[in-house]
Amino acid sequence: MSREVTDIAIDLIARPSVTPEDAGCQKMMADYLAPLGFDIESMVFEDTTNMWARKGSESPLFCFAGHTDVVPAGDLNQWHTPPFEPREIDGYLHGRGAADMKGSLAAMMVATKRFVEKHPDHNGSIAFLITSDEEGPFINGTTRVIDTLEARNEKITWSLVGEPSSTHLLGDIVKNGRRGSLTGNLTVKGVQGHVAYPHLADNPVHRAAPALAELARIKWDNGNEFFPPTSFQIANINAGTGASNVIPGAMEVMFNFRYSTEVTAEILIERVLGILDAHGLDYDISWVFNGLPFLTGEGPLLDATREAIYEVTGTQTDPQTSGGTSDGRFIAPTGAQVIELGPVNATIHKVNECVRTADLELLACCYEKILEKLLCR
Amino acid sequence: MSREVTDIAIDLIARPSVTPEDAGCQKMMADYLAPLGFDIESMVFEDTTNMWARKGSESPLFCFAGHTDVVPAGDLNQWHTPPFEPREIDGYLHGRGAADMKGSLAAMMVATKRFVEKHPDHNGSIAFLITSDEEGPFINGTTRVIDTLEARNEKITWSLVGEPSSTHLLGDIVKNGRRGSLTGNLTVKGVQGHVAYPHLADNPVHRAAPALAELARIKWDNGNEFFPPTSFQIANINAGTGASNVIPGAMEVMFNFRYSTEVTAEILIERVLGILDAHGLDYDISWVFNGLPFLTGEGPLLDATREAIYEVTGTQTDPQTSGGTSDGRFIAPTGAQVIELGPVNATIHKVNECVRTADLELLACCYEKILEKLLCR
Repeated sequence: MSREVTDIAIDLIARPSVTPEDAGCQKMMADYLAPLGFDIESMVFEDTTNMWARKGSESPLFCFAGHTDVVPAGDLNQWHTPPFEPREIDGYLHGRGAADMKGSLAAMMVATKRFVEKHPDHNGSIAFLITSDEEGPFINGTTRVIDTLEARNEKITWSLVGEPSSTHLLGDIVKNGRRGSLTGNLTVKGVQGHVAYPHLADNPVHRAAPALAELARIKWDNGNEFFPPTSFQIANINAGTGASNVIPGAMEVMFNFRYSTEVTAEILIERVLGILDAHGLDYDISWVFNGLPFLTGEGPLLDATREAIYEVTGTQTDPQTSGGTSDGRFIAPTGAQVIELGPVNATIHKVNECVRTADLELLACCYEKILEKLLCR
Repeated sequence: MSREVTDIAIDLIARPSVTPEDAGCQKMMADYLAPLGFDIESMVFEDTTNMWARKGSESPLFCFAGHTDVVPAGDLNQWHTPPFEPREIDGYLHGRGAADMKGSLAAMMVATKRFVEKHPDHNGSIAFLITSDEEGPFINGTTRVIDTLEARNEKITWSLVGEPSSTHLLGDIVKNGRRGSLTGNLTVKGVQGHVAYPHLADNPVHRAAPALAELARIKWDNGNEFFPPTSFQIANINAGTGASNVIPGAMEVMFNFRYSTEVTAEILIERVLGILDAHGLDYDISWVFNGLPFLTGEGPLLDATREAIYEVTGTQTDPQTSGGTSDGRFIAPTGAQVIELGPVNATIHKVNECVRTADLELLACCYEKILEKLLCR
């Protein structure tokens, strides 16, 4: 088996690119891609380093999206190996970012090189959209690169995101969409007072409890073929001074929706406000729009991904939309089809992050086959 | 008008007896009472100084209950006069404890002296039950003196508590009972998780909201002639890690009942547990019994108090059971009748605490008449 994917992954992991640092990863990638015919654009926004590398100017445009930043190492004493000194142990490559997602970067780099060498006259174009803030506040990363592309009408047809989507076997799961995420910060107002004189106070906890009970009880939708039902969760609730004899003057509630394509953020907001108003609450509320839901249904990208995984690994992949957010949410609104395919995610964001080296080679083979199916027909 | 009450109050206020300190107040009182025929017992428990002074051994036993400790002065810059340097300004005596309750102590001392001198052969006995922890945790004060008296079967017939009960005019309100106070510390248990995977978690806020709504809605009783309806108030509620994407694993709720004589703590606890169980909650709960409700209805003590106030001040007093707790709650369970009568409470526990000097003399006259009505018939 070729060692090239593993060797590139080792080179990347050895660069301690804790978000939003890039630590030279993108320069290394650029030096690899430029000889293959890629034009390199570095886009630095504030503390974030991004790279847009494109080979060809024709449509359709296939874009691999990924990130060079990693989450912090955490407690170094719990690591069996130093997190930024990659080590191969019993078939696994250990180090921060091995699975999320420097292994995927290495796999796609090698897949692209092999593909371009075999198919110098392929259709369309190939691009890499790489950021260094996927693990951070995602303000100056993929979203600003997409803004730049949109401004010059550069349209991505298919985007493969290298996020570690697999759970047990490489390719057992791909993500073909993500739910939307909407956070509400609610302050229910009352009048503070002494518990011995409740007629002089107005308890916001008492006022709000029936409204919260109703919100928790609602079935917002039934989901659909690709999405689980929309979920409402109260993440934080706080009121009171700590004393047992004071009626609190206000209550803070933070809640989050993960929502399907059966509703919109506007519909959810309207329903929440309707319930708060129906209960006669005096409140302030602010909303944080964390991401729109998106779905990549049947079509060339999902077909190519499914077939490639089956041909390389023998696994029938399961397309899912569950789980957290990814940078795919910033690419999908441009009209691109978006699929996430990457290695097994069991150790991501944990100490002793690792990935099977054999899986990295399999992943490179999957990526190469996807390119063939999309750009050689 | 005699200055004796004011002069004794000044002597007491000048002693900085911030709870649980007594600062020599009880010794001064003992030196005053002993020549009148009182036997003095000092009962020191831990950090608390108590005094039991009794004249006579016959029944019925009239007991004046009070405290020498005061709450801290607070922000000294906001005081117009130093809190422990009593000053008379425009007919008001200023200083920490002037109204709560060194003025009452002085009034009762003078009233007792006058009464004893006029009625050396009065019926029954007179006692002073004085503590230095009424403003503190009330662990080593009145409750332990009462335990001592109960152990030797020494029974109080009537107890007049010197707490500042008046609101606008001296004697406009007396307290002839207090509501019970019961605090519940509830932990509703769930399963922590990521909001993106709600099926793997169990949100305790969602589970508890309907139960809290029901508890807040309940009419526990209608009160009665002397008590307002029982009141339930959630004082504190807390859940969550602060993050918007984590379902909390538990929720803490602290609530407090102020309850009438129409229910008991046992009934309230049973109803709360019934509701929590009916909603299928997994919870821990602990209870703090802050005090039983008590009521002194029509009878010799209320009659004597009412008549004395009317004869001295022309005011028809209004017996109430509202407001916070007092040490009367420790005396009433022995079977004693308990009434609270003291000066206007507008400035208690605040900076620039003060009391009208004329009211202190009126209060002494009321106290003396109450003694006459109870012990000279």
